[in-house]
Amino acid sequence: MPEEHVMKAAMQRYIDSFNAGDAEGLSSLFADDATIEDPVGSELVEGIEAIAEFYRGGVKVVTEMSLSAPIRGSHANAAAMAFDFKMNIDGKEYETGAIDVMEFNAEGKITSMRAYWGPSDTNMPAWES
Amino acid sequence: MPEEHVMKAAMQRYIDSFNAGDAEGLSSLFADDATIEDPVGSELVEGIEAIAEFYRGGVKVVTEMSLSAPIRGSHANAAAMAFDFKMNIDGKEYETGAIDVMEFNAEGKITSMRAYWGPSDTNMPAWES
Repeated sequence: MPEEHVMKAAMQRYIDSFNAGDAEGLSSLFADDATIEDPVGSELVEGIEAIAEFYRGGVKVVTEMSLSAPIRGSHANAAAMAFDFKMNIDGKEYETGAIDVMEFNAEGKITSMRAYWGPSDTNMPAWES
Repeated sequence: MPEEHVMKAAMQRYIDSFNAGDAEGLSSLFADDATIEDPVGSELVEGIEAIAEFYRGGVKVVTEMSLSAPIRGSHANAAAMAFDFKMNIDGKEYETGAIDVMEFNAEGKITSMRAYWGPSDTNMPAWES
């Protein structure tokens, strides 16, 4: 099980990498067989190739990301954080508030990320689910 | 699946019930077969009787609870919130920051609660795990 400070540092790097537009930095935080469910209730993104593609798209639209409270740990291989992010899609600005829960392997790589945000947490047009 | 505003209202009632010292109000939010893992990595509290006991103990020590960011929903039967709470145990004051993830049944009752907080998120003495 990774130490709590290792998980929190990875999640801070996640925020920092988005702000730096660093897609490779983002995908490097994940294990090869990791999964992403963003938002929770949508189809899984599975495996490092699909994850790398997910973040190459993500950094193109996310313009700013900031924690809304300190990153929290747990007494297991998981941690969570509340944050806000802004996107620019085709010249339109969107703001979303979310909570991400991440699980880690012994090497400190993310094995799963689940993003909690719903239609009422964003001014984006309704998600087709 | 409960509507997003139903889940968020239940979670706000969770905060309000703690501040009112209302243990029965807290356990009434849960389904009969619900589970609690607080903190994540500790033994499950299983079933409504054990949950009622858990909150009867909880309201005796929690003196204040407040959201640190808005409650977030999802595109499924789950929602999450970041919050802080203060406890008084044997005359000593403790502060903890946490993120709770809750899942709901179709009737809007909580079926599982998982609380993300680790040793570095509290000034309580180290948790024995």
